[in-house]
Amino acid sequence: MSMASLSAISSQNLFTRRNRHFITRAIQKPLSSTTSTEQLPIQPESDDHHSWRSISGGLNVPSTISNLLHLSAAPKALPVSFDHDQTPIFSPKEDISSLRSAIHGPVDWSSLLEPLHPSLRREILKYGEFAQATYDAFDNNPVSEYHGGSLYGRSRLVPLLGLSHHGYSVTKYLYATSHIDLPQWLLRPLLRSESRWCNESNWMGFVAVSGEAETRRIGLRDITVAWRGTVSPSEWLEDVQSRLEPLPRADDDGALVEKGFLSLYTSRSQSSRFTHSSASEQVMRELLRLVEFYKNKGEEVSVTITGHSLGGALALLNAAEAASLLPADVRVTVISFGAPRVGNQVFGEMLKRRGVKVLRVVTKQDVVPKVPGVVFNEGRKGKGWEWVYTHVGDELTLDAGASPYLKRGVVDIAGFHGLETYLHLVDGYERAEGGFRAGARRDVALVNKATRLLREELRIPACWYQPENKGMARNEFGRWVLPRRDPEDIPSPCDEEKLISSSSSSS
Amino acid sequence: MSMASLSAISSQNLFTRRNRHFITRAIQKPLSSTTSTEQLPIQPESDDHHSWRSISGGLNVPSTISNLLHLSAAPKALPVSFDHDQTPIFSPKEDISSLRSAIHGPVDWSSLLEPLHPSLRREILKYGEFAQATYDAFDNNPVSEYHGGSLYGRSRLVPLLGLSHHGYSVTKYLYATSHIDLPQWLLRPLLRSESRWCNESNWMGFVAVSGEAETRRIGLRDITVAWRGTVSPSEWLEDVQSRLEPLPRADDDGALVEKGFLSLYTSRSQSSRFTHSSASEQVMRELLRLVEFYKNKGEEVSVTITGHSLGGALALLNAAEAASLLPADVRVTVISFGAPRVGNQVFGEMLKRRGVKVLRVVTKQDVVPKVPGVVFNEGRKGKGWEWVYTHVGDELTLDAGASPYLKRGVVDIAGFHGLETYLHLVDGYERAEGGFRAGARRDVALVNKATRLLREELRIPACWYQPENKGMARNEFGRWVLPRRDPEDIPSPCDEEKLISSSSSSS
Repeated sequence: MSMASLSAISSQNLFTRRNRHFITRAIQKPLSSTTSTEQLPIQPESDDHHSWRSISGGLNVPSTISNLLHLSAAPKALPVSFDHDQTPIFSPKEDISSLRSAIHGPVDWSSLLEPLHPSLRREILKYGEFAQATYDAFDNNPVSEYHGGSLYGRSRLVPLLGLSHHGYSVTKYLYATSHIDLPQWLLRPLLRSESRWCNESNWMGFVAVSGEAETRRIGLRDITVAWRGTVSPSEWLEDVQSRLEPLPRADDDGALVEKGFLSLYTSRSQSSRFTHSSASEQVMRELLRLVEFYKNKGEEVSVTITGHSLGGALALLNAAEAASLLPADVRVTVISFGAPRVGNQVFGEMLKRRGVKVLRVVTKQDVVPKVPGVVFNEGRKGKGWEWVYTHVGDELTLDAGASPYLKRGVVDIAGFHGLETYLHLVDGYERAEGGFRAGARRDVALVNKATRLLREELRIPACWYQPENKGMARNEFGRWVLPRRDPEDIPSPCDEEKLISSSSSSS
Repeated sequence: MSMASLSAISSQNLFTRRNRHFITRAIQKPLSSTTSTEQLPIQPESDDHHSWRSISGGLNVPSTISNLLHLSAAPKALPVSFDHDQTPIFSPKEDISSLRSAIHGPVDWSSLLEPLHPSLRREILKYGEFAQATYDAFDNNPVSEYHGGSLYGRSRLVPLLGLSHHGYSVTKYLYATSHIDLPQWLLRPLLRSESRWCNESNWMGFVAVSGEAETRRIGLRDITVAWRGTVSPSEWLEDVQSRLEPLPRADDDGALVEKGFLSLYTSRSQSSRFTHSSASEQVMRELLRLVEFYKNKGEEVSVTITGHSLGGALALLNAAEAASLLPADVRVTVISFGAPRVGNQVFGEMLKRRGVKVLRVVTKQDVVPKVPGVVFNEGRKGKGWEWVYTHVGDELTLDAGASPYLKRGVVDIAGFHGLETYLHLVDGYERAEGGFRAGARRDVALVNKATRLLREELRIPACWYQPENKGMARNEFGRWVLPRRDPEDIPSPCDEEKLISSSSSSS
């Protein structure tokens, strides 16, 4: 790879100047000396911090670069029937209650991962679609009165986003604020005004609970938490690095987590009605309430926490707290997509000891799971290891090169990080090195909702997920206005504490 | 103005490298020597082509730059009632048949221009909205089967775009092709395939005729032609310069017009069903047909040709031909918006001699009317003048600084060139230096359909005119697809030759 092709990378819009440094640093040495894809040897006890080999940790640089560039050989032929507009996207759902210990319960799920069990695949997609809903419902119109909130009221999110077939009801919305300087894209009060619904808090996700039919199908009552992340990785790659701090209330000395994630999860603000209590307090109060309610009815209960990107980091913090505060027989599971590292090795061991099962879904071409800790990570042992970021749990590794529907030879940092890209690859995944599953039925067009990754032959517009006229509509006088929002969809903190009976009986 | 602020201009996205040269050339000399807004002296008989003063022609450089930057002093206060969402956009229409000679007939309209007569303002807006319809109905989705055509069938354009109140019916769609290399944005067969409806031709506008009610109101039968232009001036600024060639069939020796415009207006293609005949042949055949039909009924007939940008250039070529081929008592009028220069002085005199009335609506901050001929233009006399581009007709000069609704101090080449910006400024225009008309009722929100020019306090989203999900919709299998188009909206050359009785009786 020549410097010319390097500069071609860095001229991509998605690379800020700082990210360019990140990439350059990652690849600076081996380019001329090796093109092998072998793992470079690790020298665990070396004291020479300036030797490239000693700090490379588990990073396989040539294959990382090849993955980033999505350089897998020739384009694959499209499946013969790629024009399957007439194929239903849903196959009939099967009863998976016999698998409940392995999927939602205490049994390790490694036996379901290779090859990927169809029922686990389906569950991963279900939680991934809940995580996707936090993006699809997010109001990111800077001139909206409710910018930074959810577009839809709590009871309308599931039906309006077409997720009713999953059989869950949302019981609570979650909001977060932060006391440290977070990048502007994370908390977005762009147009400050007296009338704004909230200048400091953002909608960050929801708690939902399985209805009667879904509870029977999976064999227990499942409470799920979905955390919103971010779809613009370009700024945060550098921002989240190297600011570990101790986890409060940890019974393990030495558990360190990233300061920015922790601040978002634990900050309160007296000036915002939505975050008088922190995200942590909101979610834990709701989880304790729901668990108590269903356990009093004698039911078996699981908690499954999901999130993409930043949302995956929040899911891990949430899981650590839930596993410590909930009754021991309530199993806490995390299914994250493209999540960054969150804490050090002590934090990881703490999660394991508390029985938290973690499945990290990671795409080879996605750079976000490589941060923080591109250089210092779980591959590194020895002096100073307590300050090293560590991944947690089992990894399901996806390869964008396996999908015949995606373009070849493109550098698209945001595209490979996108959650819909992840869900497409999960749908096609059968086994490592196993190509793309012929029976995959998920709608391929969804990949291009916010990317341009689909091959042009498919004729799906790029970045097509957009509201008509950005929500503007003509009123009875012929004028274009942003219509007043349906009262049911106006964010309100009072709305968040509904009686459980009304929510659990609705499905 | 310092070089620092210059480089701030050139860093704007809209400036391609070539346009930057254009700007630099236009302002290179006077920056350090004068900030006066006086007209620089012209030396008409100078032979020194390299003297800046001698080639500056009518260009008032300091005021041009000040206009480009939209540097008028402090922001004006918004009108007290700017939140007039409850005000109807239409006032009752008055009978203007007594003004027919001045508005649509042979009488010079200079008496109506200063101050601008309310009835002429209303007519200018009517034709401007027809020109705007050619943009609003243009299919610019690169993966659409009908990319480059109209989104709506001929009979549905007026009602679907909310223009029924004008009382016209579309009788024919116009298509064009070109035999010279035009920039890609102009003819856009992006996705070539066997099934594409047309790889070579683009929809370029329509012919419409006034219905009975409108004909009574304005005092004669009005046939209008609206030509589509382009909304992306960044590339064409340089492309259209300095390629004058003789007008074919001109009875005036020495009439020269810009080669690119002429090619688009006159080219045919045997391989495209839509342009077996040229745009010129299509429009003239329809005009002759309609004129004959209505004159046979004993009616007085006018032809009013409109267009924005490139569309304004085509309008002028069309007017030159129409005035030569139609009966002498049919008055031909052009109302153009932000149109570039088209031909030389002989071409201009030819139009005048043929009785073509031209109203050029021009915004001071718009650069497009300054091309071709930024340097060599009607201000230049003497040797070589037959190769000099010349503006034609009366000018109505708008000033973006007059509107209290627009941002100050922005450089927004595309924004100031946008047709909706023009229509907003026409609505507010009363007299030169006269501020913004208090009675203006046109919907201000329309300015931001494709710009970000409106002040943020108005809380209108930027560039809000967009179809829901780029036309994607879920089919009965739950899949997102571009739905098959309503047969009525599928472009067809056969559809273009309808009996006049059906179209003229419909309104």
